Amino acid sequence: MPQPLPISDQARRAAGQAIGFLMQQAVENADCLSLAAGLVDEQSLPAELAHRTLADLLQDPRKGRQRLQYGTTQGPEPLRRIFRSYLAELEQVDDQLKSLPLSRIILTTGSQQLLTLIVRALFNPGDICLVAAPTYFVFLGVLQAAAARIIPVQSDDQGMQPEALQLALRQLHDSGDLHRVRLVYVVSDFENPSGVSVAPERRPQLLETVQQYSAISRILLLEDAAYRELHFDIPARRSIWSLDQNGHQNVILAQTFSKSFSPGVRVGLGVLPEDLIQPVTDLKGNDDFGSPHLNQHLIARTLQDGTYQQHVAQVRQSYQSKRDAMLAAIDREFADLPQVSWFRPHGGMYVWMKLPAHISTGFDSELFRRATQVEKVMYVPGELCYPPDWEAAPGCEMRLSYGVLSEQQLDEGICRLARAVRSLLLP
Amino acid sequence: MPQPLPISDQARRAAGQAIGFLMQQAVENADCLSLAAGLVDEQSLPAELAHRTLADLLQDPRKGRQRLQYGTTQGPEPLRRIFRSYLAELEQVDDQLKSLPLSRIILTTGSQQLLTLIVRALFNPGDICLVAAPTYFVFLGVLQAAAARIIPVQSDDQGMQPEALQLALRQLHDSGDLHRVRLVYVVSDFENPSGVSVAPERRPQLLETVQQYSAISRILLLEDAAYRELHFDIPARRSIWSLDQNGHQNVILAQTFSKSFSPGVRVGLGVLPEDLIQPVTDLKGNDDFGSPHLNQHLIARTLQDGTYQQHVAQVRQSYQSKRDAMLAAIDREFADLPQVSWFRPHGGMYVWMKLPAHISTGFDSELFRRATQVEKVMYVPGELCYPPDWEAAPGCEMRLSYGVLSEQQLDEGICRLARAVRSLLLP
Repeated sequence: MPQPLPISDQARRAAGQAIGFLMQQAVENADCLSLAAGLVDEQSLPAELAHRTLADLLQDPRKGRQRLQYGTTQGPEPLRRIFRSYLAELEQVDDQLKSLPLSRIILTTGSQQLLTLIVRALFNPGDICLVAAPTYFVFLGVLQAAAARIIPVQSDDQGMQPEALQLALRQLHDSGDLHRVRLVYVVSDFENPSGVSVAPERRPQLLETVQQYSAISRILLLEDAAYRELHFDIPARRSIWSLDQNGHQNVILAQTFSKSFSPGVRVGLGVLPEDLIQPVTDLKGNDDFGSPHLNQHLIARTLQDGTYQQHVAQVRQSYQSKRDAMLAAIDREFADLPQVSWFRPHGGMYVWMKLPAHISTGFDSELFRRATQVEKVMYVPGELCYPPDWEAAPGCEMRLSYGVLSEQQLDEGICRLARAVRSLLLP
Repeated sequence: MPQPLPISDQARRAAGQAIGFLMQQAVENADCLSLAAGLVDEQSLPAELAHRTLADLLQDPRKGRQRLQYGTTQGPEPLRRIFRSYLAELEQVDDQLKSLPLSRIILTTGSQQLLTLIVRALFNPGDICLVAAPTYFVFLGVLQAAAARIIPVQSDDQGMQPEALQLALRQLHDSGDLHRVRLVYVVSDFENPSGVSVAPERRPQLLETVQQYSAISRILLLEDAAYRELHFDIPARRSIWSLDQNGHQNVILAQTFSKSFSPGVRVGLGVLPEDLIQPVTDLKGNDDFGSPHLNQHLIARTLQDGTYQQHVAQVRQSYQSKRDAMLAAIDREFADLPQVSWFRPHGGMYVWMKLPAHISTGFDSELFRRATQVEKVMYVPGELCYPPDWEAAPGCEMRLSYGVLSEQQLDEGICRLARAVRSLLLP
């Protein structure tokens, strides 16, 4: 037996996180219909488009070789220029984007790498991040690994409540902790897990609140817009970032092409305040000198020739049908159950369901056991989506994803889940 | 003006590193012939092969879509099986590799990501890494960012001296610091920057020394084998990792396909001791959930159908010719200069040159100014390749790369460099 391996504090803190348990459960319950998996719909992936575009990028040997060479840590400038035009299209504010220096844009390995780099660049142990409750559980894990103090902010079906953010920051100010606040993390559209978007009128309010306290001690709002392009029955919304007129000094915009195009190419996109670019680039330089250059060319080319936009329109349709199928099944199967409610998302990949407070949904719960062992259906326990040490976290919620399954499977999955819930609610 | 942005300790430590200066110099001296750039030879990049292979991988829509889906954090098992067979070929020890559990293999974004993940998984501030002197300067930067204590170990033209390692570890043991030693970092073949390989007879000696002290307090030998396949006039060597019979509990093997295939696809490969896999995977899960799946398929397919091996043979030939061109020019131009010496590498991409001790080669030196401003040629100052606070570091060395330039340009570059050196040596 070798001597035990000494592990760093950050590795210790990264151990045993929600995502790990979840993946273990997914493996152990491989015979279940998965309403848990956060993967994208495989049928929506652009094999033919990627095939054609890569062929085009590699056909000319000289240009092909350039694309197989190292890029740069931030991504090559000509590519960042294309991504800037794409942002201008999304935001429908051409002028504002034209004046955005390319140096403010960074290309990463999915947006997940950007989220982690930002936390590593800003947080010492004990520094504070405010988050919606519930929120994206992998980001909670990143914060835990950084030994951050995580403060949940009351959220509802319009997103994070500005007055709750105001209150939380005022309390931190009064207790002398404002200088430890680094980030307010907001998933602005179709949040994973809640499906909720931040309402248009709340966007400037959240920003103004951050700016108000940032005048005392700098605070950044990290806007995770991973799902913004997957809108179904409402038009696209301008980002909170676009409202940050003060030279975009208070908002970080994080986007990804994993949901709208392909997670297997891992291209993410960030726009950062001027003084955050260098620290993030320094860390990324140590990590990888830059994400795969060829993959950045793939996305950039489809953005440029319009095939990306065509593809996203198809992806939207496909997820919309699946959302409709899941909601129709839930309406049918759960309508008569007392104190059960669910949110109707206008985009994204998730439906958030609340059960009566006495029904626990956790991995150790009777419901989880019945669902996975008896009915053969799996969901994500809602408690994973709250800060792990938060005593007020509800234990009776579920994240249901319509990402992976077909419409028919979604219907069957919801039937199974309803039987499991019913068996506990109406024994 | 916004309030100043508070930056984390690790981001502060990652700032102002050698690689940053070097890249700035490269930009400012873009009119120079670059003997500095560590990029691979663009002419060697497999545009046609990548074109063909990607087309093949994406042609069938169903399989294509699977390859555009997320992989897994470590990389999918069927792919790791292919990489294991490749390792078996390299090591020529089939049996040993067959018994290696696939769980010990991890695929990363180049080997650079693996090096950083390992440091993040093992090091708290003040923990110790022993390195050859000189060594790979980007890794020194990673160690600095982790606030590691870096201890240089005497090296010569046969690599790190086992007796010097023995001495350093004994001293650390005697001073009570052995329990802070996490890694011994060894670039086993054609080290960047020195071109030196660890001699076959030293490999077991270094390993035994590590094992001896690891019996007291666990120490890992991190074998960076980035250049192992670029061997010219000597046969491939078995890795130090392959000698670690004790279940490979003491050696980490880090490899990359950036030098032998393409840095633009960023595929790296690691084999880790059993108890290091989980901490590294936990951190990588937070960072990116896995490196680009499509790219892993690209490399795996070429490994499987033998086109990779054919390609590497061509790459070897191309670098060999360029090494010959550089050495011929150096022999011709520098032979008559007193106290100038250089190492003749048998592979890799670098020639290490030593000038008389009184000739400084640093960014602020007269030689660097003359080379870049007057003669228009750029090199990497050798001092970057020593721990930054090491007082004994020589200041009179240079790393010369034959990676990027053509044979003719290499000849011209060496002529220019010789004129710059001559003007200082023989004024």
